[in-house]
Amino acid sequence: MTGAPPRGFPEAEFRARLARAQALMAEEGLAALFLTTEPEIRYFTGYLTRFWESPTRPWFLLVPATGDPVAVIPAIGAHLMGQSWLSDIRTWQSPDYADDGIGLLAETIAELIPAGGHIGTPSGHETHLRMPLADWGRLQNALGSRQMTSDAGILRRLRLVKSQAEIDKIRAACAVADRAFTRVPEIAAPREPLERVFRRFQALCLEEGADWVGYLAGGAGPGGYGDVISPASERPLAEGDVLMLDTGVVRDGYYCDFDRNYAVGAPTPEVETAYARLLAASDAAFDLAAPGRTAAELFHAMDAHLPGGAGGGRLGHGLGMQLTEWPSLIPADETVLEPGMVLTLEPGIELTPGRIMVHEENVVITETGADYLSTPAPRTLPRLGG
Amino acid sequence: MTGAPPRGFPEAEFRARLARAQALMAEEGLAALFLTTEPEIRYFTGYLTRFWESPTRPWFLLVPATGDPVAVIPAIGAHLMGQSWLSDIRTWQSPDYADDGIGLLAETIAELIPAGGHIGTPSGHETHLRMPLADWGRLQNALGSRQMTSDAGILRRLRLVKSQAEIDKIRAACAVADRAFTRVPEIAAPREPLERVFRRFQALCLEEGADWVGYLAGGAGPGGYGDVISPASERPLAEGDVLMLDTGVVRDGYYCDFDRNYAVGAPTPEVETAYARLLAASDAAFDLAAPGRTAAELFHAMDAHLPGGAGGGRLGHGLGMQLTEWPSLIPADETVLEPGMVLTLEPGIELTPGRIMVHEENVVITETGADYLSTPAPRTLPRLGG
Repeated sequence: MTGAPPRGFPEAEFRARLARAQALMAEEGLAALFLTTEPEIRYFTGYLTRFWESPTRPWFLLVPATGDPVAVIPAIGAHLMGQSWLSDIRTWQSPDYADDGIGLLAETIAELIPAGGHIGTPSGHETHLRMPLADWGRLQNALGSRQMTSDAGILRRLRLVKSQAEIDKIRAACAVADRAFTRVPEIAAPREPLERVFRRFQALCLEEGADWVGYLAGGAGPGGYGDVISPASERPLAEGDVLMLDTGVVRDGYYCDFDRNYAVGAPTPEVETAYARLLAASDAAFDLAAPGRTAAELFHAMDAHLPGGAGGGRLGHGLGMQLTEWPSLIPADETVLEPGMVLTLEPGIELTPGRIMVHEENVVITETGADYLSTPAPRTLPRLGG
Repeated sequence: MTGAPPRGFPEAEFRARLARAQALMAEEGLAALFLTTEPEIRYFTGYLTRFWESPTRPWFLLVPATGDPVAVIPAIGAHLMGQSWLSDIRTWQSPDYADDGIGLLAETIAELIPAGGHIGTPSGHETHLRMPLADWGRLQNALGSRQMTSDAGILRRLRLVKSQAEIDKIRAACAVADRAFTRVPEIAAPREPLERVFRRFQALCLEEGADWVGYLAGGAGPGGYGDVISPASERPLAEGDVLMLDTGVVRDGYYCDFDRNYAVGAPTPEVETAYARLLAASDAAFDLAAPGRTAAELFHAMDAHLPGGAGGGRLGHGLGMQLTEWPSLIPADETVLEPGMVLTLEPGIELTPGRIMVHEENVVITETGADYLSTPAPRTLPRLGG
């Protein structure tokens, strides 16, 4: 793909992540991190596969307070993990109904982690433990004097700030979606069923360089749509509709997440006004965004432009290895912005009860302000057909 | 899409699922089920959205021992869940850092579930709890005399056997992949980089009627490939390669999961022999498959055709709302086959160290045997180019 950065990361990227993690573990008095989910394990290893779509097997990574991470994984992953920078990869034949890796994991913990050590696992907002609850109980019983505890938000703190290499990958994903959005007039017109538009839009994203289309939602309706998370209906587009497509394309393991709105035929003045307000809102947040500002301040900058306010919803969020990440642009989020944070600005308006419009851009915080990663939306609502 | 069943399910489908669940809950002495993951919640509600790709918000469903399920979900889902058959939908504004739904959930439990009641949550193989661990602790502290326990495998038992309407949806997903596989010669030839083949194959799946392509993995290499879970490399296809594409396309919330192999140019005799053995293995399992047989017996039927054996790996699995489901075709799985179970038959061979071939078909158990859902692979390895 033109202009896309090389795939993967040099080992130095992972060593830098590990060093930051170990510095935080020292501060928090943790002897290790215990990780079970796709982005957590990929963050430290680079292990990239769509095989996580299968819920059958658990995967474990231990990041000790000193030394390199140790993977304890199903044998089916040995070949691919063997291509990572890790040297200590332990496998078992999964699924094993008698012991699905817990024995091997407990042995590895006993070997790596000093008696009495505290092992941190992500436990806060936007996290979960990806292993069977019964096995989580078994593991805790097998730890002896060691104990599981929270990771004290270390994974959140690490992943909040992206490296330049990560930003480049997100920018490449955004560029794919940019090009696909530009081509929407090729695939969407009055009388075209929404589900066909969704299908063809995903094909455009692939043609423009997506590895896969991890997310597509949207809606279409007269003067606005009902929500922003629905799959496509069979309803054909009609004159007077507003069409919105919101996509997360994946390029080398990193997401974009932004949407674009289109008027089918001529938009009503209400729709044009709403669109102008949405742009004014995201402009205001973009202008304010800089190191030292907070997530909450970006929320309020946008909310001031939205008649009736955001109704309590959030107006943007972090972005990177996942479609959505910390922080949330909500009044309660006091996260202080730092260079390298990647955010979506996502103001929404309710035009009439049950009819909304939502706009979204992707930005990165720089030393002095912010840069767009998405190409900002046109200042006038683009028109399809008519 | 030609021949595809209508979208969604009639309410009677969900009422039947609920009745089966409540009968099992009565047997197991459970006062309710507590569900947190996408397939578990969709199984009882039909709630279908790609928004689960965002890890930000937890979603909860309570299925009481009597009465209808109650959804406790973020407000952003109210519009879409409101279109389901559920009448009791309780929402909170998420994310809420002070209380992300736990208070509302605890109140709902106190209202619906008698004091002393046991609440079952999926805890065994292939399950996890999709909520922050810290909130799981808070919830348990808020339950008073009620307590969380395992669901006694109820979700597994329910989802193992598909209804006719579910089988029709899986068949439609298989038909999409069938048509896309037939068109691989349009997109794959010597000198074509594998990542471009992957991209264009996904576009073919969309063109043929996929709602989205939930999974694509595969490989290509001289006389076999290294594993079956890798993303695409930039390496161009070369004469002598075997190319394998393994896809899970989604149609109305249901997956297919099968692969197809192709020889790039002329295959070696070793590759042809391996391919014949793989077909003989899946034929043997297909011929044996019938109510009363076990998952382990299907494993052994295939394993007998595989020189050196399966090396401990599994040779197939369940399929439906997820790419892979219970059971596993492994020696330890004594699941007795019943009409309505949908399985993959997935034999694999190691040709030389590090070079494998894998073949996969999708079948449904009938009253008297099994039917193919995928169109069985050609008896001779299809050839690309050359």
